[in-house]
Amino acid sequence: MAKQISMPVIRRLPRYHRFLSELESQGVERISSNQLASIMRSTASQIRQDLNCFGGFGQQGYGYPVSQLKEEIGKILGLDKKFNAILLGAGNLGKAVATHMNFSRQGFELTAVFDKSEEIVGTMLRGITIMSDDEIERYCHENKIDAAFLCLPRNSVKPLIDKLYSLGIKNFWNFSHYDIKNDYKDVIVENVHMSDSLMTLCYRINESYNN
Amino acid sequence: MAKQISMPVIRRLPRYHRFLSELESQGVERISSNQLASIMRSTASQIRQDLNCFGGFGQQGYGYPVSQLKEEIGKILGLDKKFNAILLGAGNLGKAVATHMNFSRQGFELTAVFDKSEEIVGTMLRGITIMSDDEIERYCHENKIDAAFLCLPRNSVKPLIDKLYSLGIKNFWNFSHYDIKNDYKDVIVENVHMSDSLMTLCYRINESYNN
Repeated sequence: MAKQISMPVIRRLPRYHRFLSELESQGVERISSNQLASIMRSTASQIRQDLNCFGGFGQQGYGYPVSQLKEEIGKILGLDKKFNAILLGAGNLGKAVATHMNFSRQGFELTAVFDKSEEIVGTMLRGITIMSDDEIERYCHENKIDAAFLCLPRNSVKPLIDKLYSLGIKNFWNFSHYDIKNDYKDVIVENVHMSDSLMTLCYRINESYNN
Repeated sequence: MAKQISMPVIRRLPRYHRFLSELESQGVERISSNQLASIMRSTASQIRQDLNCFGGFGQQGYGYPVSQLKEEIGKILGLDKKFNAILLGAGNLGKAVATHMNFSRQGFELTAVFDKSEEIVGTMLRGITIMSDDEIERYCHENKIDAAFLCLPRNSVKPLIDKLYSLGIKNFWNFSHYDIKNDYKDVIVENVHMSDSLMTLCYRINESYNN
């Protein structure tokens, strides 16, 4: 059983899960904290400290059992759950997210997609017929929805967030730059800020050219 | 002039830039560290400490001049530069990235797009005719390329990374889960790990349901 795990450790777990999945697919059965540290560019002591939170793994001299550890981390993350999610915005970004992601590996099932464009509504995405934004309310009354994935332009977000919140949806995966937390304090939001990442790359390139 | 700024501060700068851009577009001319802290869900002392790195801003009682501060942060990030970038992979994800991002606001210009699919090569994306992967070498010899944006499936990355590295391209914006740093130590990589973000959301939802 997992003890209470701190948020910084939690935020590192998807990365452990990713590397362990890769090792598993390569047929690696056991790995030492030193080897894992080398692959993950971490330190063996950091890894031992993180993984000790789950207890019972990594006997001295035997290393960690890859599949078992991956499973355990998956359970802690809740990846064995199947949270129902709807996707808002089926433009290029929404399409990319819907086709690029697996969802079930991250604990979700995509059950519906909504868009406001008449040209897009009625077309198929990932085997799902895209519905009009007007149908969000009815759909969310008839189905238990755990989360909304927002692939909308910044300016379209606010009215939809208000609607979703009033329907009881408080968990968001947000690709827009709209700051949901400023409107609603009791929501859970994970933001994907692609432009922040690109600006950081710009800084690092610029700095490397100047040195 | 900016003093040496630590990497944790640098990583917060895109976020400052984003919030200041938003304030600027709302016509806000000056903002106090308290107001900025409230919007950014930070603390006034953290903000004063971060922004003191650039010196000369935020006189006591007058707050920060929004546009000037945004400009200064932009300069530190190098957003006034125009680094040439190529995009590899024009599937759904590549298309979404190419159409969704502005690039020039993040210090880049997208100059070419490559794909291996015969169906995609020759079509247009963002006003650019997509070229075949076979043309990467010629193109990078004829043009000075600063960075590559990788929107490829994990399995396609390795041979292309080897090629790009041999052509002198060492800066990557990476959407795949391929770990470039494990192959080449002297590259600059910013990864966008969408599935890590979604797994974290899964954990937080699961935890909120359990409490």
